[in-house]
Amino acid sequence: MAIQWGIAGAGKISNDFVNALKVCPDGHHNVVAVAAASSLVRAQKFADEHNIPIACGSYELLAINPTIEIVYVSSLNPQHFENTKLFLEHGKAVLCEKPLCLNFSQAEELIMLAKKKNLFLMEGLWSRSFPVYKELVEHLKKGTIGKVLFVEAQMGRKLDVERLKLKQLGGGTVLDLGVYVLQLAVLVFGHKYISVQALGHLNEEGVDDSMSCIITYPEHGIAVLSTHTKAELPNSAFIVGTLGTIKV
Amino acid sequence: MAIQWGIAGAGKISNDFVNALKVCPDGHHNVVAVAAASSLVRAQKFADEHNIPIACGSYELLAINPTIEIVYVSSLNPQHFENTKLFLEHGKAVLCEKPLCLNFSQAEELIMLAKKKNLFLMEGLWSRSFPVYKELVEHLKKGTIGKVLFVEAQMGRKLDVERLKLKQLGGGTVLDLGVYVLQLAVLVFGHKYISVQALGHLNEEGVDDSMSCIITYPEHGIAVLSTHTKAELPNSAFIVGTLGTIKV
Repeated sequence: MAIQWGIAGAGKISNDFVNALKVCPDGHHNVVAVAAASSLVRAQKFADEHNIPIACGSYELLAINPTIEIVYVSSLNPQHFENTKLFLEHGKAVLCEKPLCLNFSQAEELIMLAKKKNLFLMEGLWSRSFPVYKELVEHLKKGTIGKVLFVEAQMGRKLDVERLKLKQLGGGTVLDLGVYVLQLAVLVFGHKYISVQALGHLNEEGVDDSMSCIITYPEHGIAVLSTHTKAELPNSAFIVGTLGTIKV
Repeated sequence: MAIQWGIAGAGKISNDFVNALKVCPDGHHNVVAVAAASSLVRAQKFADEHNIPIACGSYELLAINPTIEIVYVSSLNPQHFENTKLFLEHGKAVLCEKPLCLNFSQAEELIMLAKKKNLFLMEGLWSRSFPVYKELVEHLKKGTIGKVLFVEAQMGRKLDVERLKLKQLGGGTVLDLGVYVLQLAVLVFGHKYISVQALGHLNEEGVDDSMSCIITYPEHGIAVLSTHTKAELPNSAFIVGTLGTIKV
């Protein structure tokens, strides 16, 4: 039977996500309802465009819909925590856009809640689903490049959008782009780091325009990660092992 | 008239340097003498190979030779300070292999001494003389890539040699390779940094095997530099400006 989806947020990313679901084989995924917290009109427009049966003017209406099994959350960053919490509390599985939350304690609370309720909870980190990552993981497992000692990754684009510049919108390069570079370090070295140092520049709102950090790991591992919203960085990554290098 | 050279150190780098001098137009450079601090035999062998008139068994003999105008110093890192000081005190100009010294105060003392004596003193940072650097400097001056916001450079080679591993030989990746990546940041952003953070791993002798550092500069400049002696890094550099990127 098809997985019954609810879509929380009627913006561009939800649009992309629903379009992506349509590419999946028939009968695997079914979008039941879409909700926009700002207005029913916006939700209805989205529902009409994608032929979705139900449009809701609030996330609560989505949460109490008994048909929905899993909710895709694509609200603004600062709302991810409360939205995801709402759906988990109503027994829905959740696929939440990155960043899952704005800080560690929020993320921890959601994970505890999902565990307690035995519900699927996932951060929508799409790059991990790219074919190149499948290949990368296989090479790391096989030890093609030996023992990994060094990871360098940067991601930077000229992004002149409000949600990135304002603190109240959960802005900043770390929360937007940092996730992509950090997940690579986590993928390669795991969670057990020794030390972290970071520097960067803030904009006039006190939100980070750029960030570079160094993370050291046991057994001589080191990751050097950078993000930027004022410069187009090469957006490349090097994973350097004792026997060779993988460039992504 | 030809510049009269003395060569302090009869090792591989001196060999390369003297060979390089031979490529220069006739009558520009003349190697008068070579000295090896360890033994006259070693100096004599070097002199024979390169057809150098005088071989000395001590640097003092080189320093008091009235014909010599400039000395090329290629001793081990911890000796650079005292050797360079000796030659400056005897009124010789000095081209000293990198790193000029082991710390800031030593370097400052030599620079003050050279200024006081009105003598030429230069660190032998060969990469700055590569044609690509000339081109790079021209592009930076012309503003081809706009205002530079981000520099990333790494240099890493598997170097399993004693002089790099032992503290008493002035070992470590920072003193050996750090010079090359740091000079790029200095070339682009100058000396006025805001903040520096660095992490890395030490070997069993307490000498750095790897180092990564972040340097922030005024007007949103940031440099991310890495060195390694256990891994073959890509040895590339990105200089990212508001209008484009230069890869070296």
